Amino acid sequence: MKNIALTFTMVFAFFISKAEEFKSPNQKFKLVFELNERGRPTYQLTMDDATIVKTSKMGLELKDTESLLEGFTVKSVNQSTFDETWEPIWGEQKEVRNHYNEMEVLLSQPKTNREMIIRFRLFDDGLGFRYEFPEQDNLIYFVIKEERTEFAMTDNHTAFWIPGDFDTQEYSYTKSRLTEISSLFDEAYTGNASQTSFSKTGVQTSLQLKTDDGIYINLHEASLMEYPAMHLNLDDKTLIFESFLTPDALGDKGYMHAPRVTPWRTVIASKNAGDILLSSITLNLNEPCAYENTDWIKPVKYIGVWWEMITGMSDWAYTQLPAVQLGKIDYSQLERNPKHAANTTRVKEYIDFASEHGFDAVLVEGWNEGWEDWIGKSKDYVFDFLTPYPDFSVEEVRDYAKSKGVEMMMHHETSGSVRNYERHLDKAYQFMKDNGYNSVKTGYVGNIIPRGETHYGQWMVNHYQYALEKAAEYEIMINAHEAVRPTGLSRTYPNLIGNESARGTEYEAFVGSNPDHTTILPFTRLIGGPMDYTPGIFQTDINKVNPERNTYVRTTLARQLALYVTMYSPLQMAADVPENYEQHLDAFQFIKDVALDWDKTLVLEAEPGDYITYARKEKGSTNWFVGRTNDEEARDSNIRFDFLPKGKTYIATVYSDAKDAHFRDNPQAYQIKKFVVNSKSKLNQYCAPGGGYAISIKETQNKADTKGLKRL
Amino acid sequence: MKNIALTFTMVFAFFISKAEEFKSPNQKFKLVFELNERGRPTYQLTMDDATIVKTSKMGLELKDTESLLEGFTVKSVNQSTFDETWEPIWGEQKEVRNHYNEMEVLLSQPKTNREMIIRFRLFDDGLGFRYEFPEQDNLIYFVIKEERTEFAMTDNHTAFWIPGDFDTQEYSYTKSRLTEISSLFDEAYTGNASQTSFSKTGVQTSLQLKTDDGIYINLHEASLMEYPAMHLNLDDKTLIFESFLTPDALGDKGYMHAPRVTPWRTVIASKNAGDILLSSITLNLNEPCAYENTDWIKPVKYIGVWWEMITGMSDWAYTQLPAVQLGKIDYSQLERNPKHAANTTRVKEYIDFASEHGFDAVLVEGWNEGWEDWIGKSKDYVFDFLTPYPDFSVEEVRDYAKSKGVEMMMHHETSGSVRNYERHLDKAYQFMKDNGYNSVKTGYVGNIIPRGETHYGQWMVNHYQYALEKAAEYEIMINAHEAVRPTGLSRTYPNLIGNESARGTEYEAFVGSNPDHTTILPFTRLIGGPMDYTPGIFQTDINKVNPERNTYVRTTLARQLALYVTMYSPLQMAADVPENYEQHLDAFQFIKDVALDWDKTLVLEAEPGDYITYARKEKGSTNWFVGRTNDEEARDSNIRFDFLPKGKTYIATVYSDAKDAHFRDNPQAYQIKKFVVNSKSKLNQYCAPGGGYAISIKETQNKADTKGLKRL
Repeated sequence: MKNIALTFTMVFAFFISKAEEFKSPNQKFKLVFELNERGRPTYQLTMDDATIVKTSKMGLELKDTESLLEGFTVKSVNQSTFDETWEPIWGEQKEVRNHYNEMEVLLSQPKTNREMIIRFRLFDDGLGFRYEFPEQDNLIYFVIKEERTEFAMTDNHTAFWIPGDFDTQEYSYTKSRLTEISSLFDEAYTGNASQTSFSKTGVQTSLQLKTDDGIYINLHEASLMEYPAMHLNLDDKTLIFESFLTPDALGDKGYMHAPRVTPWRTVIASKNAGDILLSSITLNLNEPCAYENTDWIKPVKYIGVWWEMITGMSDWAYTQLPAVQLGKIDYSQLERNPKHAANTTRVKEYIDFASEHGFDAVLVEGWNEGWEDWIGKSKDYVFDFLTPYPDFSVEEVRDYAKSKGVEMMMHHETSGSVRNYERHLDKAYQFMKDNGYNSVKTGYVGNIIPRGETHYGQWMVNHYQYALEKAAEYEIMINAHEAVRPTGLSRTYPNLIGNESARGTEYEAFVGSNPDHTTILPFTRLIGGPMDYTPGIFQTDINKVNPERNTYVRTTLARQLALYVTMYSPLQMAADVPENYEQHLDAFQFIKDVALDWDKTLVLEAEPGDYITYARKEKGSTNWFVGRTNDEEARDSNIRFDFLPKGKTYIATVYSDAKDAHFRDNPQAYQIKKFVVNSKSKLNQYCAPGGGYAISIKETQNKADTKGLKRL
Repeated sequence: MKNIALTFTMVFAFFISKAEEFKSPNQKFKLVFELNERGRPTYQLTMDDATIVKTSKMGLELKDTESLLEGFTVKSVNQSTFDETWEPIWGEQKEVRNHYNEMEVLLSQPKTNREMIIRFRLFDDGLGFRYEFPEQDNLIYFVIKEERTEFAMTDNHTAFWIPGDFDTQEYSYTKSRLTEISSLFDEAYTGNASQTSFSKTGVQTSLQLKTDDGIYINLHEASLMEYPAMHLNLDDKTLIFESFLTPDALGDKGYMHAPRVTPWRTVIASKNAGDILLSSITLNLNEPCAYENTDWIKPVKYIGVWWEMITGMSDWAYTQLPAVQLGKIDYSQLERNPKHAANTTRVKEYIDFASEHGFDAVLVEGWNEGWEDWIGKSKDYVFDFLTPYPDFSVEEVRDYAKSKGVEMMMHHETSGSVRNYERHLDKAYQFMKDNGYNSVKTGYVGNIIPRGETHYGQWMVNHYQYALEKAAEYEIMINAHEAVRPTGLSRTYPNLIGNESARGTEYEAFVGSNPDHTTILPFTRLIGGPMDYTPGIFQTDINKVNPERNTYVRTTLARQLALYVTMYSPLQMAADVPENYEQHLDAFQFIKDVALDWDKTLVLEAEPGDYITYARKEKGSTNWFVGRTNDEEARDSNIRFDFLPKGKTYIATVYSDAKDAHFRDNPQAYQIKKFVVNSKSKLNQYCAPGGGYAISIKETQNKADTKGLKRL
């Protein structure tokens, strides 16, 4: 599985402080490390002749002890190179090359007799670095007051940002100059069930930037474990971002125990926007897979009893009581809410639909006792994750799904009450195994209990990891919503098949999202890992589903298909209700056909905030799929099919916007056309405002198939 | 088991606000309830002609909503009476009479359309009352900012107090006037591994007071569940105590969900100090036993690998590393600390000793990996509760103990890292069952994790209860150290066989405790339930055990015997090392003989801070035991044996201080004498400074036994 080409070729050691530099394997990136006059570590990153990060200070401020900021000397510098190719369990590429040059700077702080390592890795598309605290006598247990890592920008770049927040990333993106962030902050800071901002110039990572010279820069982190999530706080006078860690209940930033390392801080840069999307830096900075056996981890295409509650057409709760005390209430004696969707009869309809159309799994939300008062009450014992409502028969559903060849997907909403969840975790997982559920969608809606902790602090980062590794013991896959945004951990723990951690499709049913949202997410949220974006909404007018609500999904139907290609995930939901798919089975065919796992991924066109076009080859197949997502403007897409092998003939089925399509007024105007294509084909395709297109490309060796079809 | 004589005899209802009063069954206590001019509830308590609590305000301040303080009207008042006799699983009496009159005041707050009940119960020896929040539309979820219950004192009483603290009760008591508390506070606030004070006039309950008229008043609480522990904060100008609840990490005092009740607030009062000690109010205000089967709950007399570490003679840790990462360290490759006591060989010596002398169990501390850096590091993953050090064979010890007819007592030190403990709880309990451990001593040394929570807040109260009820599922008994002080919960959950929650004998080895300490504890800490005080120290000069330490236990050897009678507990340790008992096997005989469970308990003499003499009849036997604990002054004790049944003959073995005994200079000067006694006997017994005596009294029908013995 691994192919290590060469390792540790060069070793140098220095004992005096001077600038140290090294370059990426392709010589494109250069990193200069230097201690400043106060003995503080600094770094500078250039790409060819352009400065990406100006000289930026590094280090950590500690609590109740001398900080790891200044007074350092360089004890040694070791350079090495590494090149391996590894195969992910699932992913956008069959093989990932992990090729970097590394510089390990061992610093000593004579005043405290401590040592700290800063490890830099230069890849062909950017930088990763982290702090390491080796085992030593004078630095064992310590508390971080703040990490003081700077990212000094060269100019007033354009940024695609969401507000810095310890509890949510469910915001629409704002595109602005860096100096405009503070004045636009309040407008960007829209409501959420749980949110905690810290600064009017605080933003979250992954942060996508663009310079006036056309360089795309992405700042994020990799391998976030046993540490709080990093935000960035901008000094909009100096244009320097500084790390701002998520605090705990006491305002502390991290409890450390050496030997320990921080997560990697990453800077990806390119003049080509598509290179940002294709970068493997985040994955490569994570450790190899931790599990021996991964046979149980598989991509999942699913439907679920969900959108009908999101739209308000149905309810999660079985009754309409204002509050319940679990275990002290006999639901069977209460009047059933007729809108309760998670009942055996309705679930069987979903199972039938999933079976008929080849879906792997069916999610059911609202199956278990406690939905009457689950949100916003800071309720400790909110769910037991075991006890179904009277109208949901776990056994009957289990047996019926099994007979239909469909898996059930469990739902564990924690309501942020994490102690309660952990207390039930083993039993809840065992219950899943006993009843044929091999994956779980988890939710962390609302403020965290223990109170004072937040979604992105060290406490919760520890929890998500705990749940993930324990799930692996039960061979369960996790799709965690409201959890901390991913940082490539799925390389190591590939049962993390999904995350939300951004503003998903559900917001379209609540209040709407910007039409360009899906042209930005791949540059930001998806840098860290796949998102359970829940696309596939065919009836975008929520009023048609729920007459009491007048929201709408800012998309054409064709773009909903494209998202299965542009929003990479091994877990994909067809989120609309079966009845809406029945109206458009021709378009639905694309969702049925589209792959979940890939041999190869290409970016054909990309500009954050405007459009993205991907082409992907299905894993272990000759099929290709193309997807294009468009912002609110009408645009033409021009692509070549030169990614196809020469000499082969394919049939391309193009699902596109009709000429009069529009995300607001005419979203369901789509057309489906078939063409014959080969490696020389080109396509000029119109994309409506809020539109896009999807193409499935299947090889044919039968001339009859191509008969009467136009060639592109 | 229950004998309900009469219930609910009188029911009245009123709809206007006026003073409401009722009396205790014996007419001794009178409670007057009244709404003041602002509609705030108040109460007043009198005993015969004396006022015990002056008119005191009641109610709760809420967060972010109208408080439950003022604007109340009385909707109804219901009076009733209750009389039952119940049998505790273990206790000081075979039968407990629960006899009270009750007044339920249903209040309505018209402005908010809310209701609250205040339920008062008058027993023949005092008062209990609590707040109740019935199920209603306008008060479901709420957060308590502060409970505002006053206890208005009539005068500048003498108090036996320890500093109010959210994390520890391990203080020596200060005896002072109420107005002197603030000036004595700093001196009283001695160091602890975790401590958080809140006010210079803040004190803890149970609080023992004495008026200048010779009335003893005790303030405490009963049935503390799902609520923070109550402290008292004194206004030393008005001499009013007000409740001060333990806050959570956010400073809030309690998250509530109606229907819910608060713990009971208790006021016990008598002109006879012994009545305070014998009051059953605290137990009676708890619910009956929650368990169907209690066969597995039994009193335990034990020894343990413990005092040798407390004195510094041995160590808990296997190695001398400054820090370890559990699971990443191979202890078998490390040099063993020769002072590591919890090794199979040494433990077998304890098992031999326990078996030879008829002890039920052997505790072993320091058996599991992690003791190198367990304290004061805020270490999250500090123990796994499963993995022994290489020199401790769980299997060998298990088999050896079984062959010797001795139970093993498990030790779970959590280091305050409670999430970690809960994560391992099921496996740790199962491990106990698999290896023959039926009881566990738990420890919560140091600051709590989740950080910001404290030992006595709602979060931790919930945890202790969770661990207790889960232990019952495994039929495990718990002896929780550093946990919240007990409030009679052992009536409901009798597997809570012990608690520390006060300054135990260990402090004698650290820095010493006041010689009068054990003359106060029964009036304070023991009001809520038994304490694992760990008496039985025969070698009181710590320097003889550990030459590097010069502390000493402020007691005579004879008093150490007395404590098995005066410090009631169904769990009693003989805390000294076997080698020290071997030197005094004649005195040790009392520890072997003394009972743990009682048919009847009497107080023969008592004055807090000076002396206490108990007589107790062993459960299901004719044996009696007498114990006397003395303060630092030499005193004579005068007791009558009229508690013995008439016409029977007994042999009394008196273990007393020699004339020249002294807690500091001559602690081991004791004498053992046998006498013939009957119900007409009297004893005048000298007690040395820091001394006391113990008597075992056994019936005899054989004249030969009494031959040559003096009659008392």
